[in-house]
Amino acid sequence: MYIHNSPLAVRYAETDAMGVVHHASYVVWLEVARTEWLAAQGYRYADVEKEGFFFVVTEVNCRYLRPVRYGDDIVIRSHVAEMRSRVLQFAYEVVNSATNEVHMTATTRHICVDRNSRVTKMPEYLLKLYQAMQTE
Amino acid sequence: MYIHNSPLAVRYAETDAMGVVHHASYVVWLEVARTEWLAAQGYRYADVEKEGFFFVVTEVNCRYLRPVRYGDDIVIRSHVAEMRSRVLQFAYEVVNSATNEVHMTATTRHICVDRNSRVTKMPEYLLKLYQAMQTE
Amino acid sequence: MYIHNSPLAVRYAETDAMGVVHHASYVVWLEVARTEWLAAQGYRYADVEKEGFFFVVTEVNCRYLRPVRYGDDIVIRSHVAEMRSRVLQFAYEVVNSATNEVHMTATTRHICVDRNSRVTKMPEYLLKLYQAMQTE
Amino acid sequence: MYIHNSPLAVRYAETDAMGVVHHASYVVWLEVARTEWLAAQGYRYADVEKEGFFFVVTEVNCRYLRPVRYGDDIVIRSHVAEMRSRVLQFAYEVVNSATNEVHMTATTRHICVDRNSRVTKMPEYLLKLYQAMQTE
Repeated sequence: MYIHNSPLAVRYAETDAMGVVHHASYVVWLEVARTEWLAAQGYRYADVEKEGFFFVVTEVNCRYLRPVRYGDDIVIRSHVAEMRSRVLQFAYEVVNSATNEVHMTATTRHICVDRNSRVTKMPEYLLKLYQAMQTE
Repeated sequence: MYIHNSPLAVRYAETDAMGVVHHASYVVWLEVARTEWLAAQGYRYADVEKEGFFFVVTEVNCRYLRPVRYGDDIVIRSHVAEMRSRVLQFAYEVVNSATNEVHMTATTRHICVDRNSRVTKMPEYLLKLYQAMQTE
Repeated sequence: MYIHNSPLAVRYAETDAMGVVHHASYVVWLEVARTEWLAAQGYRYADVEKEGFFFVVTEVNCRYLRPVRYGDDIVIRSHVAEMRSRVLQFAYEVVNSATNEVHMTATTRHICVDRNSRVTKMPEYLLKLYQAMQTE
Repeated sequence: MYIHNSPLAVRYAETDAMGVVHHASYVVWLEVARTEWLAAQGYRYADVEKEGFFFVVTEVNCRYLRPVRYGDDIVIRSHVAEMRSRVLQFAYEVVNSATNEVHMTATTRHICVDRNSRVTKMPEYLLKLYQAMQTE
């Protein structure tokens, strides 16, 4: 199973008055992580959209274990947990790269739609990519 | 069971290039909704914090059913699904107030901590409030 | 000169680790304020866009005088400082409604473009509205 | 004059329903750029804060020249335009690294305060750094 590591610097704007990263900021980080997962496979999500495929988020599930603070060095570990012709699931761990502690885990689900928001089969190259990962 | 209705105007900044509300924006809306739930009971969350109680988010679970667009009139229906001495769970529905369609559902979990981030019993008035709601 | 008052509750997500509202959050508030200015005149910005007029932001200038904290009750006072056929300028004051102190001032400039991003004359009803305000 | 180049990938969450980056998102980018300017000199802003120095934003001035779109490769060019004992000004250009076109320019001003929010002289090493840059 391929796990992509996305290093990430906490932005001050992502913190809140409790002195830690606000829980909604992580949801944006997950998006960054899956975009980088895809880029690491050689595909830019902006190009996937230009081809007429859009991955709509249908579920987000987050578990917050330990707060992340401004100045912490973070890595997001992401992998594809499931891929079927129209559906995709990612799983993530937000890890402190100094301590190796897991601060947050999450999963997201996505369906593939076309320009008219109709559910559609995702690009063949993504399905093949996932199959290749499974048999490695 | 008391359900609070929070009317909400979509902010342009909350939309994304797909022309709809970005999935992370809803997570901020849930926070607005539970703050308004509390305010409707006569408590300001800013005051609860001044007393030394902080409700840390430990879980966020979102199901996105239909996109919300800029200009849609939204109501967030929120209620307390569970309250024990140290733990709290909210449940939410994001509803289009013109069509009455549910666009998104969510739950969030929280633990109560003190100024030193130690898990603590939440204020008595909140526990009593919930008990009173249960027996109504 | 018509000044619109937009009451606003600080969202926790808008604060940062310094314990105050993050400076970028105010920029979103300005957008809320001018949308409400327009709504108070009887126009919804979502409808203006549907007619094919888009007000692109070309300038934002912010002066931060005093921090705003979570729990502060805020009013944003906004007015149109200039309106010509293609250009619009708003001016704003972020005021603490309990103390009446001004916490922040700002101006924003906008040009009107059509669906193809070409600069265009803004809707006649907006120009007339402004002229009427000038002669009041 | 030292100019720092911060490459930046547009986040989907930073776009809006006009299909371009929302104007408030750039304000967060400027913060990222000045943090990276500082890091390139060998200082982490998180450490500066731990020493008891906080750079409060007092002004933000933005000029938006051309929209940035999701998928655009961006570089933010930042430099210190002024530094006196208590005051600091940064200037920025948001540049498309493929076309070299400037999409946005900005300046921000900051004052240095201590833990009690009192205006204070900034760390000596920053003043020396700036003086060294001036004489290069």
